[in-house]
Amino acid sequence: MDKIIECVPNFSEGRDLEKLEKILECFRAKKGVKLLDYSSDQDHNRTVVTIVGEPEAVGSAMVEAIGKAVELIDLNIHEGQHPRMGAVDVIPFIPIRNVTVEEADKLAKNVAREASEKFNMPFFLYEKSATSPHRENLANVRKGQFEGMKEKMKDDLWKPDFGPDTIHPTAGVTAIGARMPLVAFNVNLSTSNIEIANKIAKQVRYLSGGFRFVKGIGVELHDRGIVQVSMNLTDYTKTSIYRVFETIKMEASRYGVNIVGSEIIGLIPMQALVDTADYYLRLENFKFDQVLETRL
Amino acid sequence: MDKIIECVPNFSEGRDLEKLEKILECFRAKKGVKLLDYSSDQDHNRTVVTIVGEPEAVGSAMVEAIGKAVELIDLNIHEGQHPRMGAVDVIPFIPIRNVTVEEADKLAKNVAREASEKFNMPFFLYEKSATSPHRENLANVRKGQFEGMKEKMKDDLWKPDFGPDTIHPTAGVTAIGARMPLVAFNVNLSTSNIEIANKIAKQVRYLSGGFRFVKGIGVELHDRGIVQVSMNLTDYTKTSIYRVFETIKMEASRYGVNIVGSEIIGLIPMQALVDTADYYLRLENFKFDQVLETRL
Repeated sequence: MDKIIECVPNFSEGRDLEKLEKILECFRAKKGVKLLDYSSDQDHNRTVVTIVGEPEAVGSAMVEAIGKAVELIDLNIHEGQHPRMGAVDVIPFIPIRNVTVEEADKLAKNVAREASEKFNMPFFLYEKSATSPHRENLANVRKGQFEGMKEKMKDDLWKPDFGPDTIHPTAGVTAIGARMPLVAFNVNLSTSNIEIANKIAKQVRYLSGGFRFVKGIGVELHDRGIVQVSMNLTDYTKTSIYRVFETIKMEASRYGVNIVGSEIIGLIPMQALVDTADYYLRLENFKFDQVLETRL
Repeated sequence: MDKIIECVPNFSEGRDLEKLEKILECFRAKKGVKLLDYSSDQDHNRTVVTIVGEPEAVGSAMVEAIGKAVELIDLNIHEGQHPRMGAVDVIPFIPIRNVTVEEADKLAKNVAREASEKFNMPFFLYEKSATSPHRENLANVRKGQFEGMKEKMKDDLWKPDFGPDTIHPTAGVTAIGARMPLVAFNVNLSTSNIEIANKIAKQVRYLSGGFRFVKGIGVELHDRGIVQVSMNLTDYTKTSIYRVFETIKMEASRYGVNIVGSEIIGLIPMQALVDTADYYLRLENFKFDQVLETRL
């Protein structure tokens, strides 16, 4: 089976569709690359693009798109509600099929190296590619945004991993790295008491002693008169969705509260659902390639 | 998303690889058709071929392959342990993605009509395409085999659905129709008592009052000193794998017996595992196209 990687670059342009089209052109009709989706937000003045394909093809299309963004986008005149520090603000590489997180990391570094040399752009490695813990979190890296980055990068703590030691005058600086696919998973509880949802969110999330790859908060669903534990699972291969679900069920039961349902928002990798079925059916020696669709 | 159908023709030739290659040629390098697998059995003198692809392309490749088999295989001189009645013995069409069983049925009928006219071959519609309950089961249809079929077809009960009212002199008669993908599912019990496995098999299988789409028997696993309920699920969209699993768990508990594991033998459609995860996670409004891989 082919190796498939996903890449979700965020471009700091969501209004000028002509410029945007020139950037998207770098992903269209490229052998081994499929442009899955893009969505622009006028208020954010930002476009999120999703491409998938063979790692090498995705990497070389990405280098080309960085060049086009550096050419077309000037952060000095960019306005928008979403925090940003670069013409290409962030470039995550996400392993999808037959690709390890190490391979995704290597690809991120290769793209950063090549683009930094070609376009004289600085790059921070973030998430699984981060070279230091304080650079793992994108919000930390981006703090200060384009306007504050020149000053911030004078500090040795914020020397970039590739490229010049200061921002590109118009294109700023880009965060790049490997991360796992996010799974947005919400569990709905048979109560309107938000404190219960908050307590359970605290129990399962990493920040307050829960599972390593769970972020979560309590949320009120006013229409339905119930509350929900709303989560992002940041590595479903290590913190399984069924384990989080069963833990929430267990914690809820002490309040006499049941799980009335759960939701997956957006996309989920097949493997996460296969792992769930595998657990509950107590499958022995099930191999992922027994899923018929992997043969197509 | 594209429509994908699977077709698993069984050819009555498992020894002469030159002839076989000429038949396989009909499936190779055809636009919209992928030859997934073929396996020949010398003792059975039979080859099972698996192809997938767009319904129309699969249908027209199949008509071509029937012609080639009629030309090359003579049942008058065929010997083998597996029961057979035709050069192409049976042709099931199996809906895989974005195809309904009604569309698979229509395709089976179109192929039968075209091939019967072109090659003067008779066809019985079987399984979901059967025109009468006594023709649903392949074993019933094939009873008498090639040698007895001429006599059998004199009976109005066994007038073919397409083609001449008697066998093709060398290629016999073919069963063709739509069926759902089979899931081979075994559940292992924490006991060596085969009677318990047999009792539970009876409780879940259709034949003795169980679920509509379950066939099952008790089996001893001598190496492990345990027994198993060994099943074929013949329509996982209507008799869900988790429902069968939970029923076996419930029935086993009255003997103080637990489920120690389960096995899926061979391939399973993604939908069957998604349905399982959907049930146990109590998912609300989950759509199959939220599985990331369906977008690739």
